[in-house]
This record gives sequence, C-alpha cells and structure tokens, in this order.
Amino acid sequence: MPLDLTARTPAGARLVGLAETLSGHLAASAGAHDERAAYPVAALDALRAAGYLAAPVPPELGGLGVASVHDVVVAASRLARGDASVAIGTNMHLVAVLSMVRRRQIAEAAGDARRAAAFGSSLAAAVRDGVVLAAAISEHGQDLTRPATVATRTERGWRVDGRKAFCTMSAAATHFYAAVTFADEAGAERYGYAQIAADAPGVRVHDDWDGLGMRASASHTVTFDRVELPAGALRGGFPAGDATGYMDRNLTAGLFHASASLGIAEAAHANALAALAGGNGAATHGRAGTLLADSELDLTAARGALGRAAMLIDDHHDRRPRDAGTATEIHALFAEAQATKALVGEAAPRVVDRAMALAGGAAYRSGHPIARALRDVRAIGFMHPLGANRAHEFVARAALGRDPELH
Amino acid sequence: MPLDLTARTPAGARLVGLAETLSGHLAASAGAHDERAAYPVAALDALRAAGYLAAPVPPELGGLGVASVHDVVVAASRLARGDASVAIGTNMHLVAVLSMVRRRQIAEAAGDARRAAAFGSSLAAAVRDGVVLAAAISEHGQDLTRPATVATRTERGWRVDGRKAFCTMSAAATHFYAAVTFADEAGAERYGYAQIAADAPGVRVHDDWDGLGMRASASHTVTFDRVELPAGALRGGFPAGDATGYMDRNLTAGLFHASASLGIAEAAHANALAALAGGNGAATHGRAGTLLADSELDLTAARGALGRAAMLIDDHHDRRPRDAGTATEIHALFAEAQATKALVGEAAPRVVDRAMALAGGAAYRSGHPIARALRDVRAIGFMHPLGANRAHEFVARAALGRDPELH
Amino acid sequence: MPLDLTARTPAGARLVGLAETLSGHLAASAGAHDERAAYPVAALDALRAAGYLAAPVPPELGGLGVASVHDVVVAASRLARGDASVAIGTNMHLVAVLSMVRRRQIAEAAGDARRAAAFGSSLAAAVRDGVVLAAAISEHGQDLTRPATVATRTERGWRVDGRKAFCTMSAAATHFYAAVTFADEAGAERYGYAQIAADAPGVRVHDDWDGLGMRASASHTVTFDRVELPAGALRGGFPAGDATGYMDRNLTAGLFHASASLGIAEAAHANALAALAGGNGAATHGRAGTLLADSELDLTAARGALGRAAMLIDDHHDRRPRDAGTATEIHALFAEAQATKALVGEAAPRVVDRAMALAGGAAYRSGHPIARALRDVRAIGFMHPLGANRAHEFVARAALGRDPELH
Amino acid sequence: MPLDLTARTPAGARLVGLAETLSGHLAASAGAHDERAAYPVAALDALRAAGYLAAPVPPELGGLGVASVHDVVVAASRLARGDASVAIGTNMHLVAVLSMVRRRQIAEAAGDARRAAAFGSSLAAAVRDGVVLAAAISEHGQDLTRPATVATRTERGWRVDGRKAFCTMSAAATHFYAAVTFADEAGAERYGYAQIAADAPGVRVHDDWDGLGMRASASHTVTFDRVELPAGALRGGFPAGDATGYMDRNLTAGLFHASASLGIAEAAHANALAALAGGNGAATHGRAGTLLADSELDLTAARGALGRAAMLIDDHHDRRPRDAGTATEIHALFAEAQATKALVGEAAPRVVDRAMALAGGAAYRSGHPIARALRDVRAIGFMHPLGANRAHEFVARAALGRDPELH
Repeated sequence: MPLDLTARTPAGARLVGLAETLSGHLAASAGAHDERAAYPVAALDALRAAGYLAAPVPPELGGLGVASVHDVVVAASRLARGDASVAIGTNMHLVAVLSMVRRRQIAEAAGDARRAAAFGSSLAAAVRDGVVLAAAISEHGQDLTRPATVATRTERGWRVDGRKAFCTMSAAATHFYAAVTFADEAGAERYGYAQIAADAPGVRVHDDWDGLGMRASASHTVTFDRVELPAGALRGGFPAGDATGYMDRNLTAGLFHASASLGIAEAAHANALAALAGGNGAATHGRAGTLLADSELDLTAARGALGRAAMLIDDHHDRRPRDAGTATEIHALFAEAQATKALVGEAAPRVVDRAMALAGGAAYRSGHPIARALRDVRAIGFMHPLGANRAHEFVARAALGRDPELH
Repeated sequence: MPLDLTARTPAGARLVGLAETLSGHLAASAGAHDERAAYPVAALDALRAAGYLAAPVPPELGGLGVASVHDVVVAASRLARGDASVAIGTNMHLVAVLSMVRRRQIAEAAGDARRAAAFGSSLAAAVRDGVVLAAAISEHGQDLTRPATVATRTERGWRVDGRKAFCTMSAAATHFYAAVTFADEAGAERYGYAQIAADAPGVRVHDDWDGLGMRASASHTVTFDRVELPAGALRGGFPAGDATGYMDRNLTAGLFHASASLGIAEAAHANALAALAGGNGAATHGRAGTLLADSELDLTAARGALGRAAMLIDDHHDRRPRDAGTATEIHALFAEAQATKALVGEAAPRVVDRAMALAGGAAYRSGHPIARALRDVRAIGFMHPLGANRAHEFVARAALGRDPELH
Repeated sequence: MPLDLTARTPAGARLVGLAETLSGHLAASAGAHDERAAYPVAALDALRAAGYLAAPVPPELGGLGVASVHDVVVAASRLARGDASVAIGTNMHLVAVLSMVRRRQIAEAAGDARRAAAFGSSLAAAVRDGVVLAAAISEHGQDLTRPATVATRTERGWRVDGRKAFCTMSAAATHFYAAVTFADEAGAERYGYAQIAADAPGVRVHDDWDGLGMRASASHTVTFDRVELPAGALRGGFPAGDATGYMDRNLTAGLFHASASLGIAEAAHANALAALAGGNGAATHGRAGTLLADSELDLTAARGALGRAAMLIDDHHDRRPRDAGTATEIHALFAEAQATKALVGEAAPRVVDRAMALAGGAAYRSGHPIARALRDVRAIGFMHPLGANRAHEFVARAALGRDPELH
Repeated sequence: MPLDLTARTPAGARLVGLAETLSGHLAASAGAHDERAAYPVAALDALRAAGYLAAPVPPELGGLGVASVHDVVVAASRLARGDASVAIGTNMHLVAVLSMVRRRQIAEAAGDARRAAAFGSSLAAAVRDGVVLAAAISEHGQDLTRPATVATRTERGWRVDGRKAFCTMSAAATHFYAAVTFADEAGAERYGYAQIAADAPGVRVHDDWDGLGMRASASHTVTFDRVELPAGALRGGFPAGDATGYMDRNLTAGLFHASASLGIAEAAHANALAALAGGNGAATHGRAGTLLADSELDLTAARGALGRAAMLIDDHHDRRPRDAGTATEIHALFAEAQATKALVGEAAPRVVDRAMALAGGAAYRSGHPIARALRDVRAIGFMHPLGANRAHEFVARAALGRDPELH
C-alpha cells in the first residue's frame, strides 16, 4: 500500500495518467528492445503523438501546459517503470523544453515581450514539427563547464566540430541539443547550447552504444564535423568556467535522472511483491520480510526527497518570476538536487538487488524484468550532472559553505 | 547550505520561528539537565508562556492557529535541536492537542455543533489553565490495542488502576493522557484515553527514569491506584483490539518521534560542520568529505520523507473534512508514517555517529553535545508507535497488502 | 598491497600456483564465452590435463595430494578470478572429490580396509578416466533434504526419474552427481547421491541456461527419464529429512561458493585499481579513496572469514580422523560456513559495484570484465547450500541454539 | 553456536582460559566502575598476580611464555568482554612487552648476545617488580611520527617535557611508556620511547578523563615537566618522520584495539541472545531474526579478519627471526592490521546497536551492560594507531601501491 508520488496540479495529474498508460505499452516491448539493443522508435512516435514531449509547453503553443517541474518529474518516474531506456532519452528532451518554457516565462514577467515571443514561436514550432531533442553534452575527459566541442564563427554563422559521448536517443532524435564553447563578440569564451538537426551535413551518429544496461537507449557517440549553423543558432549561454551558470542550466536534470532510478526501482519492487504474493518468490518469513521492509523504507526516502527537491524548484520559480535568482539560491537548489540524485542513485540499486533476492532464481534469468532493472539502474551513477563521485564531493563542499567547484 | 524544512502556512512559519528561539534557550542548559537527569521545568514554563503548547489551537480559543500537522512537526524538529528530552515530551502533548483540534473540526464540518462546542471549550480551558499533558500509554509486555490499565465504572464515574512505563514529562505535566481499557454500556471492551490530573489521589510518579539518553525527559513510571474520575472523563475511543482505531488515533505520533530524531541529527551535524570549519575536527580530506556527504544524503532523505508524510496527512484532512476517512486510507497513511519513522530512526543515528567521527576525540567527552546526541537519538527506536522492530514488520505486511496486525 | 589468501601446505601452494596460471588462460577467453553463453570446453580439458580436477586425490591414486580443504578453496578463488563460470562448475566437482577422499581417509583411520580400498579404486578410476562430475542437486520448489528425483529399485539395480535445475557444467561433464530419494532395504526413505553417466539413455541436458550472469556455466536443466543404474550405484546416504546428514555432506560447499564470490570481487577490484593507476578511472580524490578503502575492508573481512572457516574444517578433520564428528560439531561448522557464505555473498557484490564506480563509465560497457563480474557475482545468493535467505535464517536459529531446520 | 577465536599454542590456550576467568571477575564490577568513572585498581592487581601482564615473557624470565601475537590478541578479546576499560589499558602494556620480547628474540637469533641479555634482564625485572606500563603516546594536534614531547640531553641523562593525552590506565600504572622526540649523537631527530616512573618528580596525572565511554579506563592527560631520566633511558628508536619505523613499532597495536571492539561486541551480542532466549527481548520473529543473523555475520567477519591478521604477524616473525623484515613486508602487514582495525571498528558498533534493539527497552537503561557497550565501543575509532579516518586513507593509499604517509 505504498503511496505513489502524485501530481500537484490538474494538468500534471493528467500528464501522470498519460505517462502511466504509455508506460504500460512501453513495458510490453521493453524486453525485446533491450535484448536487441534497439531503440523503440515506434514508442517514441506514440509519446510524441500523445503530447508527452510537449508536456511543459503552454496549451496556447500546442502543449499540455504542465508548468510544474514536480509534476513532469513525477510523470517521468512513471514512464521509467515501463522502459527506462526511453525515459532517460525523453527526460533530456523535457529538461531542454522546461528550460525554454522557464526562460519565456521570465521574459514575459520581466516585460521583455520580444524575447518572450521569440521563445514562444520556437516552442510552438517545435511542437508543430515534432522536434525531438537529444542531449549532446557529455565528452570523454570532460571539463563540465568548458566543452571541447567548439562553435567557430564563419561568414554565414557557425561551424561546429567535436565528439560527444553517451548521446541518449541519438538514433531517433530530430535534433541534438549540443553543448559547445564559443567566443562572444568581445572574444570571451562562453558555454552555449546549439540545436543541430540530426540530418545536417557533418553530423554522424556512430551506432556504438553497447551498455550493460539501458541497452535500448541508443546512447551512441555523435560527431560533428564542420557542421554549419545559421548565425542565430547560438546566443546567450554563460561564461565558460562559470559554475553558477552551469548549475542554473542544469537545475532539474539531476531530478530527472533520479526519477528514472525511482521508476526502475518501483517497478522491480512491484514485480517482486507480485512474485511473493503469487507464491513464486522467496518464502515470506524472516529475511524476506526484512528485505521487503528495507525496500519500502528506501522507496519512501527516495520519493520524499525527490518530491521535495522538485517542489523546491517550483517554489523558487514562483518566488523568482522575473529572473533566475541569486547565485546562493541556485547553489542551494543545485546541491539539494544533487543530494537527491545521489541518494536515489544509491537507494534504487539496493531496492532492485533486494527485488532479485525476493523474486528468487527466476529473476536471475537473462530476460527477466528485474534482471534488466538491475543492469539499467546502475547507469544513473554515470549520468551528468553530476556523476556519483562528483555529486558526493559537491555536496560535501556545499555543506561546508565553500564555493562550488565543477570541472 | 542545506535547505531546512520550512512551514507551509503563515501561522506555521511564525511557530517555526518561535521554536527556533526557544530551541536556542533550551540548548544553553540542555547539558546541565542531562547530567543531572533533571527535567527542565523552567523551560517548560517558557514554552507554555510563549504559546508553543497551544500552537494547534485556533486563535479564537487562545492558541496560535497552526492547523497544519506538517508545520507543527517542522517546529518540533527545531525544538529538538536544542533539547530533545523536552521535545519528545511536548510532542506527545501536541499529538493529543492536534487530535482534539481535528475532532473538533470534523464535528464542525459534519454539522455536530454540540460536539464541536464541547471540544472547543475543552481546548479553551486547557489553554487558559496551562494544561500540560504527558502521555501515559506504554506498559511493559504491552498489547498495543488493549491496555492492561483498566477503567472500571463506579457509582460516581470511573476508577483507574494500572502501571504505565516511560511517561515522558511526568515530572512536570499537569495531567496524564492515559490509555485504558474500559467497558462501554453494552459491556464491550473499548480502548480509550482518560485525562488524569497529576495531583489526583492515587497517582504516583515514581522518579525512576535513568536512561542512557533523553535523561532530562522525566520518562518515569506512573502508577494509578484506585484513581477516581468523573463519569464524563471517558467516552468514545475505539473497540479494544481494533487496529484501525489505534492507527487513526496514532497517525501523527510516529512523525513527531521522527521529527525529534531529525532535530537531534541536524544539530549534531551542524556541530560537526562547525568543528570542521574551525579546524578542530578531523581533516577535511578524503574520508571526512565522504562522511559529511553521506550525512547530507541521509538528512536530505529524512527531511524529504518527513515533510512528505506530514503533508499527506494535511492533504487527508483537507480531503476528509467530515470524517476520519476509510480504513484503507488510514492504513496507508499509518504505513507511510511508520516507514518514515523507521527510516529517520535509522538515518539519524548514522548522522550522529558520523558527526562524532568528524568532530574528533573532543566529541567523545561525556558532556559534549554530540555525545549527548548519540545517546538521545537511540531512544527513538523504542518509542511507540511503533517500536522499530514492529514498524519494520508492519511496513512489510502493508506492502504485501495484508491486513494490519498490531499487538 | 593486499595480502592474498595463501596455501598452508606445500602441495596446496603448488595447486594455488597452478590455479593462477590456469586462471590467466581462462581470463583471456572468458568474455567471448560469456557473450555467446558457451561453455569453455577446451578450458575444462586444460584443467583436467593439468591435474586440477584431481587435486585432492592422493598422489598414489594419481592426484595432486592436496588434503587441505583450505588450500583447495584458496585455489578455487584464484580460478574464479579468471572465469567464475568455470570455477563454480569445477567447484562442485571438487566438493564431491573431497568428500570421497575424506570418506576414504575415515575408513582407513577406522581400520575399514575394504571400504578404504573401494573408495581408493573409485578415485583412481575417476582420475584415470578423466571423470568430470556435474552436480545435479537443485530442483524447483525444493525440499533440501528430500529430493523429488527418485531412485526406484529394479531387478537389475535402480531406475532414476526426475528433473534437476541449475546443473552447472552439464554441457561438459562426463557424469552427474545426482541427489535422489530412495528406499533402503528396510523401506526407509534415504537421501543418496547417484553417479550417472551423461551419455546414459534417458539423460537429457536441456540447453536452456540463459542467466543474467555465469552465462558460460552451462547451468542447464537436466532430466532423468527411466535412467537405469547398477545395484551398486546407490548406497549409504542419510535418512531423508535428516538435517545433520545433509549438513555433513555439504560442509564445504558453501565455502566454495564463497571462494567464487571472493575471486570475482578480487579481480574486479584489481581491475579498478589498474584503471585508477592508469588515470582512466574516477579521479582519486575524495570519494574514490573512500570507495577503494571500503572495498579493501570488505575483501579483508571476506578473506579472513573464508580462510578461517576453511581452516576450521581442516582442524575438524584432524581432530576427527575416524568419524564424521558429533552433530553439535557439524552444526557449528555448517553454521560457520553458511555465515561465511552469506557475508562473502554480501561483501563481494558491494566490491564489484564499487569497482564499477571507480573504473568509470567504461566499465558499464557490455563486454567489460567488471560488467561481467557485476552480473556473475549475483549468482551466489541463489546457490545451494544455502540460498541467501535460508542461510540468514539458519544462522539466526543456530545463534539461538535452536535445532537446525532445513526444508 | 558461534565458534570463538581460539589459541593456536598450548601456552596461548592457557592464557585464554585465564583471561576468561579474569573477565568473569571484571564483569561483576564493571558497571560500578563505569558509573563512578573509577579505575578498578584491585582488578589490575589481580591481573598482575595471575601473570596476565607477563604473558608474552618467556617462562625462564618469569612469564607465561605466550610467544604468539595471535594468542595474546585472542586473550585480550576475552578480557574485553568483561571490562573493556581495563582491557584497553593492559593491551597497551602487552603491546610494549611483546615488542621487547620480539626485539630480544631478534637479538638472540642474530647472535647479539649482549643485547639479548639486556632485553632479558629488563623483562625479568619488569616481571619481578610488577611493572605496569601505560602508553603516553597521543598528543593533541598530533604529528604521528614526530612527538611534540621532547627529551633533551642533560649532563646526567635526559630531561623530558611535554603533554600527553588519553593516557589510558594512567591512574594505576607504575610507569609511562612515553613517545618523545630526541636528538641522537649526530644531532639527527629520532622518535624514541622513554620509560618514565609514574612517581618521578615532574610527572603529573591530571585526573581529567570524563569520556562518553571507557569511563573506567583512567585515560587522563599526563604532563612531564622537567622530568629527569638517566642516560640509558633512551636509545634506539627510529628517525623522526620515518613512517616505516613507526609502523614497525605499531604493527600489533591496531589488532589489540580491534580485539577490544570484538570483545565488547561479543559480550553485547551474547547479552541480547540471553534476553531473547529468556523471552525478555524483542520477539524473535521477522526483524529480530534478521538483526541477529546480521550480527553473526559481522562477528564472523571480525573474528576471521582479526585471527588472520594476527596469524600473519606470527608468520612474519617465524619467517624473519633475525630482523624486522623489509619495508614492503612491514607496510603490507601494517595495512592489513589497519584494515582489520577499521573493519572491526565499524562492525562492532553495528553489533552493539543491534544488541540494544534485540534486548529491548531495558537495554536503554543507564546502567545496562549493553548501554555501556554502546558507549565503550565507540572509543575505538579514536584510538591510535590509526584513528578511523586516517586508517581509511592509509588503506586506500596502500591499495594503490603508493608510499605510506603518516603525519
């Protein structure tokens, strides 16, 4: 009788219901895609058709109008119950969309109608055209705040060169949301995001993802080789090396990673409970009861922390309608999100391990959902921002009130 | 830069601020009371004078009007930072007051003006007279839903006989809130609460509390020997043996216990951070950073779960203005509260143990606040409802959808 | 600079050296066999040719004369570093051989020359003929002390019928060492072991093993359908349902399972250390150092407990040359072995999980040795005797001095 | 039915038996000494009278001839079951005696008869005179390899000045075994040990120990103010700052600290088992069984690791009769001992915490042996060498094959 996380707004509640329906469909074919390490393209089409990918976009621009980060995170956890490989790809898309929605809302509240309109028409176009954004952020040997992928000014605009790793959903995205270093007009280095069409000349998806888990996530290497972009494709961003700018852009990402972990763990736990109820699991005396209760406690902690961290971001948006907030606020929220990602990232594998112990030897079969969960759930520790080791160290520094460091 | 739990209502925010002020005063003398195992009577007077004990009572009846369980729980965690022995005593008082306020509100919403008025005048009288309720619930060899302490009908009302253990704040309370078994008019056994004046003939406080921790809590044995009560002193209650009735009456108690653990852990952690910042703690390289981050994660989980469980009860009150809700709802909320109590009860001692490791050998001195925290925090596992072992087993049964069992 | 477990006898030291050499060869092809879920038949031939399979057999009967259980267990841990799938199969073979060697030694010490000679010629024949025994013990819905596989008396001897699960090495063994229930001459049910040729009519290896890990172990289902055996094929055993008899026969098995876990963990840890030393792993500051130290502590505990439990069995053999020992002695040794299996079975996955965190994202690739270790190491919890849940409960009962229960 | 650690030599077995008897006596009055924070002087007299303090000394010099470090460590764990405050004091004495016995044996094996005789007569005198050595090693803000306490050459010998913290058994020792920095004849700084009579002018025991636990250990501050020593009182030692020299002198100390933790944990666990058997503890269903089994696993790990680490030192002494061994050997053994100290130092508090949960609320009473154990067992993390945080970091460095660092 666990109490699921639930949405806090009516639009959110509709989205969570939608995610549950979609999740059921995803679950049916997740095993097959995992086995073949094949991205479920049809599933992505269904998500797009149902409006899931436009959830945060205001209704007048074609979306579902789910303004609450909390509610989108909760929906994402439901999707992950069915197929975590799909969830982590669409999560990165939603992070980008939420960010644009938030920027539009700030522009509007701050009275910058031109900027608000620009964001609005971008969002409307994205919805209309069925844009699917895959994050192209990670690099090997990464400096978090200074991508090695570079955008260079050309006569017509920009040229992008670089190599990105772990570009989840790269097999199915229409565009890449690529982190690049570029020089602003004064020559100062900035960190920016360039939206690059997947079919642009010079873009290559390497089809090299072969993970222990998240096998259907198409987290391939993507290279950009002299990819041309128009002049308007890059602007804004933040000074390269600026930890606060990075945190502001990545406030919600850790929570979406956590939501995937939570969804995986909840599904595995439910699977084990069903095995126990059906008498197919380990006997329910002694040890089994303890394992089960320990998992309930872990899930209670994970849900509580995730729900709270997401609400704190919503509260921050409410309190700061006209700007991003102070550096202090952003550091605190980012630390909270990272503590949450880290703790869910530790709790969720424990829950899945116990689910395997509870469901018995059958769960050790290659194709069993719990066996897949056991492999999938271990991806989260490697996902940015922040990988588990970095998150731990960031949280310790923040607790001591020291300046954040991110490299 | 941890984000404290904060109130959700304006009245709650004032209460939390008040609790922080009072907590500072309590902290100054907590060590001395701990050493002498003496209840801080003056501190209780200060809490009463400040209105803390009447926090949930509506303003028109003399209270502070903090209707949110969440907010009272948050305030209680602040108080525990200063002196947990005081907090756990006043917590049980607040649980009883919240219960009366809720019952009054249900009566009102259900249109039972007479009952609402009766609750109202009780509450007003309690505020006016400075009533302090100490729980007299626990017994040795306890059957949770069928107290061995018995109220027997007499010509003039009731006679109570029995022995209660761990009656926190018994040295300072004006009244005991005693759980008794009694026969209703049809002769059926019921579980009820009798309010017994501490100075009534036959009441004896044994002055025998000598705990490892919570030494200033005056958790003495109390005996009732032919204590006479008026006829109106006992009514209502629930059928003896009825787990649902028990859970309904004890929905919030586990959260208050958890709030005490949280407050202790937060204070010990802050103390260790201060030692590290001042260079008096263990060096901050390697291991210290990890211990520190692990504690941040534990605190993040504890705050998240506690905040959420308390909000779920507030939500339930909002959704069910006119009755207690269904058995299913009560079981789910009670399971959530117990999972929360259990997880906070495991996380908090870990945080305190790490605080001692971080603060270094000085914290191992007998009078050090972290040493006291280490002793105090281990009380929570024994506090009802539910003790840690029972809570674990209850949570496991609930997860399997089995009927609750409470003995 | 960890201190490996080392042999206590010269013959044992030679065996450990041999195991290290063989392990190196196994490691080279372990990934390929894992990927194809193919048993490494050539590797088994190499082990046989090197005398590894005859290690416990006295030199005069063609073996390597490693009388110490401790030393064979240590060698097994080395083999598991290279390919755990191979190790767990040969372990069960060695358990059976050790048991025969011990029985021969008891017969000799007790002056039963006939029986000693019979064991001796069996052992010599097994060495000469290159016998490879695969355990056929597990069954679905298993009663540990009363196999559902039955041997029925026929005119010429016995007929065996039944279905065995998880028959590791079944694709390559020459014989199955099958647990059966049979009636003795007085009609009483007994638990016995029948050695059944893999190519006997009615034996079928189902080629159905498809595990999350231990993929190269060929742990297929094996069915016996009216398999005929000679009259001498079954004798001895112990009364069905007799926990002490079961424990006596399975005293060492838990330690061999633990040795496989240890070997997997040691190899994964070494792999992570190499990645860190080469600068390919997570940075060595903060968190990494703690993870690394935690794994050293886990490995220190695992090695200490495993070495001690194995020495205790050697000591028992020394103290009891002429019989199996008392029930009390056997219970205590079995409890020690199961506590060891359980604790190594918990520590080893933690070490492998940390190795993945230390080695970084590369270790999450499908074919990486640490990724294989992560899958393989989780098999141990399911391996009998005893599965992890049962082991826990057995250990608790033993601690309370209660009679053992095994079903 | 746990299998206790047992001695490996006949003399060791006698010592362990003696320790068990003495432990029983200590247990009877441990509570009273703990309450009054009073050192049990009579108990120390009994240990001396029984020969316990001379256990490692060869019989011909008046001792019990227990040459095995392993066996002395095992005996120490038994003593700690009765009164850990006494055990940690006598442990430091035994560490010093073992070190002198080992040095004498090396001198003898190396053919240095003069040196051997000198050690021999020192040992004989110490036994004859009933010398009790208290370690005076720790200092606040300590550099491990360079004491701030200094011995300065004078005309007649040496003058010692300094302040030592946590000088366990200082209320009862006849001499202090004090770590000092001194200049050798060439003027180079060395780390040496000076034996200082407790009643020498300038020695002051400050009677300031008031710990959370180990209250009867008399771990007072001791100051040396112009204490005069004869010229022969200081020689040998090792270069100040030399980690290897430090490790060589402190090889066994960590194991003795671990033995105290183990003894405390074993006694608390036994106490909880007795409460459960007597029906006074938590019910034995569900959670209790799991806690109990978890403690058995922890104890199995602790005993295994401690026994093994001690045997490795005995093996080293056997293999290196004529010298201390190579730096590599010493680093490896020290790392093993520190990993063992660290893991036992983590496992033992877990066992005690579970014992409290199992024994129920009674164990939370101030004077209960489990409550005392809970306080006592937490001292180990602060005891040198090495404190828990340093041990962790040392172990990590050693695993990476880096040069040891000790400050």
